[in-house]
Amino acid sequence: MKLGRLNHIGIATPSLEASIAYYREVMGATKVHAPFDLPAQGVKVCFVDTPGENGSAGTQIELIEPYDETSTITGFLAKNPAGGQHHMCYEVADIHEAKAWFEGLGCRVLGEPRIGAHGTLIFFVHPKDMNGVLTEIMETPKEGAAH
Amino acid sequence: MKLGRLNHIGIATPSLEASIAYYREVMGATKVHAPFDLPAQGVKVCFVDTPGENGSAGTQIELIEPYDETSTITGFLAKNPAGGQHHMCYEVADIHEAKAWFEGLGCRVLGEPRIGAHGTLIFFVHPKDMNGVLTEIMETPKEGAAH
Repeated sequence: MKLGRLNHIGIATPSLEASIAYYREVMGATKVHAPFDLPAQGVKVCFVDTPGENGSAGTQIELIEPYDETSTITGFLAKNPAGGQHHMCYEVADIHEAKAWFEGLGCRVLGEPRIGAHGTLIFFVHPKDMNGVLTEIMETPKEGAAH
Repeated sequence: MKLGRLNHIGIATPSLEASIAYYREVMGATKVHAPFDLPAQGVKVCFVDTPGENGSAGTQIELIEPYDETSTITGFLAKNPAGGQHHMCYEVADIHEAKAWFEGLGCRVLGEPRIGAHGTLIFFVHPKDMNGVLTEIMETPKEGAAH
């Protein structure tokens, strides 16, 4: 496998509203997408764009607030009440090939590929097998799809 | 202030060597820079490049291993023995203007601007004032400088 684009950094937050205000007012973000629910994971999500090199699209910030006590984010916030960095998401060309790659290396893939926040298939890999970082692998959206 | 480029994600690790092997062999990184010491912070550092959109340079991974017990990374690893996401670093055009901006908003800037891993001036801002994330602010390297 070849290292793909770092699509986004997932940031858990106890308040999507406060985090959006932080990115706008403290960090000066100008492109904040509309928040939406991701019921499969019991979370509300909001993407914030960062600028890439030479006018390209940079790695996004994915703000994540749980709205359901069964959400995996709820446990993270219990340990980190102010929120913080939750996961890193890399793109791959083919999600099934990527799953076979990680499993072949003995990395624990957490569940089957499912539709993620960008509308393409994703899975997570256990942080203990990924250099201490909860890692999301997502299939690159097709040309013209929203970042 | 306007949101700048996400220059790198700092990842603390108990073993730079093992983390480099992980990025090369598991994640498929092809551009791993030469590790070097950053004595002011008591750490060894290694940058790994990720690809950006349309051939641009993406956000880097900054692997950080403490070689000194007084390093701030030592405390982080005591709590997170496997390592993990430690900080996020955004670029700004002028480090002194940025310091005045954050201080004006009541955000705790940790020390005076000093030379960071990319050879430009940097400072850190307290995670409690930065949406739960330890945040590094760095002056963008001049044209032609190494990423």
